[in-house]
Amino acid sequence: MARALIFDLDGTLVDTVYAHVFAWQRALAEEGMPIDGWRIHRRIGMSGGLFTRAVAREVGRELSDEETEAIQKRHAAIFSELLPDRRPLPGACELLAELRERGIVHGIATSGRRPEINRSLEALGVGDGTVVVDRGDVARAKPEPDLFLACQAALGVEADDCYVVGDAVWDLLAARRARMLSVGLLSGGYGADELLAAGAFRVYEDAAELHRSLDELGFG
Amino acid sequence: MARALIFDLDGTLVDTVYAHVFAWQRALAEEGMPIDGWRIHRRIGMSGGLFTRAVAREVGRELSDEETEAIQKRHAAIFSELLPDRRPLPGACELLAELRERGIVHGIATSGRRPEINRSLEALGVGDGTVVVDRGDVARAKPEPDLFLACQAALGVEADDCYVVGDAVWDLLAARRARMLSVGLLSGGYGADELLAAGAFRVYEDAAELHRSLDELGFG
Repeated sequence: MARALIFDLDGTLVDTVYAHVFAWQRALAEEGMPIDGWRIHRRIGMSGGLFTRAVAREVGRELSDEETEAIQKRHAAIFSELLPDRRPLPGACELLAELRERGIVHGIATSGRRPEINRSLEALGVGDGTVVVDRGDVARAKPEPDLFLACQAALGVEADDCYVVGDAVWDLLAARRARMLSVGLLSGGYGADELLAAGAFRVYEDAAELHRSLDELGFG
Repeated sequence: MARALIFDLDGTLVDTVYAHVFAWQRALAEEGMPIDGWRIHRRIGMSGGLFTRAVAREVGRELSDEETEAIQKRHAAIFSELLPDRRPLPGACELLAELRERGIVHGIATSGRRPEINRSLEALGVGDGTVVVDRGDVARAKPEPDLFLACQAALGVEADDCYVVGDAVWDLLAARRARMLSVGLLSGGYGADELLAAGAFRVYEDAAELHRSLDELGFG
């Protein structure tokens, strides 16, 4: 039996959540849809398309596919401007390095898209040897389970043997739908209760605490 | 008996928390102190000086008063650049207008400083008739109780008759030290459990829900 870890990217391995919130807030305000920062924060991690449509519906608007696409592009542009450099979260690089060294099966499954995610992967030292499934690889993003299922298939393991590691409730809900256990990290700014209520098997502060706790998850 | 409401400003009445997080993150990184967004978020609302020193200590540095002051100035400059306009949170203007109309005693007590907070007060329609206590009016900011006690004294009411309304655990902890009940709002991005654990008497989503719930607090 090969136990495996499937990681979310933003807020889990790289410190990008607050720049994403602010970039979304500005992109939406420019389109006449001002919305509270905390409500954006609580939706980060789901597909950008789903997110944009959900916000529009909340302010009583229906967006065309072209409008949704344009807002997502504008978000990506503002985000790059705000955060040209990507900062790995504490412990993320060391954890991934140890997994590679020990041959522990792992991959990354993100609602982000190439090429936007490339700088984050570089900052983490993730090369071609690591399975990375992105938004473009599946029909439906989180909270649908498709990203995690595609990653699991690419890793050649069973769902029962996978832990999903994520900072957002969307990761944990998608994990349950994929019949995988999940680990919630506080490094995306959710409260521990929200992660537990979404089904987290364990909650740690960040990748560094997960790294110190691998034994607890059966990677002894 | 005059029941009174004492409001925090950022994250409680105006939607500024995420811009503050990002501005702090950038100001600290420029000084060679990169720190996770979520750890900044969880400290927003305490005095800028306390906050800056706490972060420095965490990364193993001691800051002089001049360095602390310079980082706070840089934060204020980045914040103004990121967010030239201040957006009232849903229901905030309407709630304050009703309190004025009904003659319900209320004031604002903020860890922010004039002139930085002036644009927020203008956006809320708060004029000279409203008591506003800011960081410059007291020796020690939140989580010390001084701001709330100074506001209470200016309002001419008893601590027992005051509710503090805030989005951060620092508001709620300072309220308990001032022997006041408190109301936590989710609009600053904390989880409900964190606010309840810090002693919130009630938790609402935002000023709009508080407005609809005044009866519950005895402002019937």
